[in-house]
Amino acid sequence: MKELKSVNRLIDSFAKLPGVGYKSAEKMAYAVLNMKNEDALEFSEAIKNVQEKVHKCPVCGSFTEQEICEICGDNERNHRQILVVSYSRDVLAFESLNTFNGVYHVLGGAISSINGVGPENLRINELLERVKKDQVEEVIIATNPTMEGEVTAMYLAHLLENENVTVTRLANGLPMGGHLEYADALTLNKALEGRKKF
Amino acid sequence: MKELKSVNRLIDSFAKLPGVGYKSAEKMAYAVLNMKNEDALEFSEAIKNVQEKVHKCPVCGSFTEQEICEICGDNERNHRQILVVSYSRDVLAFESLNTFNGVYHVLGGAISSINGVGPENLRINELLERVKKDQVEEVIIATNPTMEGEVTAMYLAHLLENENVTVTRLANGLPMGGHLEYADALTLNKALEGRKKF
Repeated sequence: MKELKSVNRLIDSFAKLPGVGYKSAEKMAYAVLNMKNEDALEFSEAIKNVQEKVHKCPVCGSFTEQEICEICGDNERNHRQILVVSYSRDVLAFESLNTFNGVYHVLGGAISSINGVGPENLRINELLERVKKDQVEEVIIATNPTMEGEVTAMYLAHLLENENVTVTRLANGLPMGGHLEYADALTLNKALEGRKKF
Repeated sequence: MKELKSVNRLIDSFAKLPGVGYKSAEKMAYAVLNMKNEDALEFSEAIKNVQEKVHKCPVCGSFTEQEICEICGDNERNHRQILVVSYSRDVLAFESLNTFNGVYHVLGGAISSINGVGPENLRINELLERVKKDQVEEVIIATNPTMEGEVTAMYLAHLLENENVTVTRLANGLPMGGHLEYADALTLNKALEGRKKF
């Protein structure tokens, strides 16, 4: 007897998630088997629903359920200050601080030769267009303090050199090699406050 | 801006899985957002499908897609030798050895006062009935070598004392505190070979 077909099918789906190996995927699949039927159906629906309802904001590229995201559509925010992050979930980290009143730009990743991600795979042209069109005064680069994040930051800084805009980078409050999403609010706030010119 | 409603809903479902905290659930939800639409739909379907197709075998209690599981329905197997495990996935560990030709009985857990699991919550009465009805000659107890597993094993051994059946326990090849599903084939085989009488 091997693993049941339908269980195998589910294991394959779980194993596609980041940081989930075969053993963990197997454990999760069996947990679904042991769930109450309504919980499993809710899980199944939640996955279908999230892809139906959520798309990328055409302005900043972060995930939204509306046509244009809440932040880009908010006239109370300072649209001349753009904070550039790699991932949509990094926006939430900054929003939870309640101290930043500018807008965001989500690149959708970072330049990485190992992963085959070049500048053309990121929303960099869209950023340049925004900078030119919206009379942007400051671009705060908040990519992760990793090798890929630093390369991406330097690339952006170089591109924006000739534009009439101040380019800043988060202060080195963030430990190198770490990831933005795991930073605590205090560290994140320090990094935001201490940002410096390129 | 807080987490999007539909994303939150999905995070809640992921967080119900064993060993998945809020941060991991969040990461997984975003991974689903970034999946190709067909992969996400397949994931959603796989969850619904697994609960529709899979149920517990009325004889041994392990998961099956058929009316009675493949092993219980196999006349080539020795139905007078029952290997008792706590969880359905433990059956797969033994089956992968290709050395055991008896049948199984899945308890559905182990006695645990902390988790509020008593003998009445496990498929113990079903085991006793099988032992009496099928002229069973040997019951091999293969619960995990943990506190709960040992308690369950002792409880079963005591219950079966007065039945005309040999009760054995896996040999101490398994390291204490470990879990059956992570044991390698060699260790598992040694434990099976070296089983001893209670």
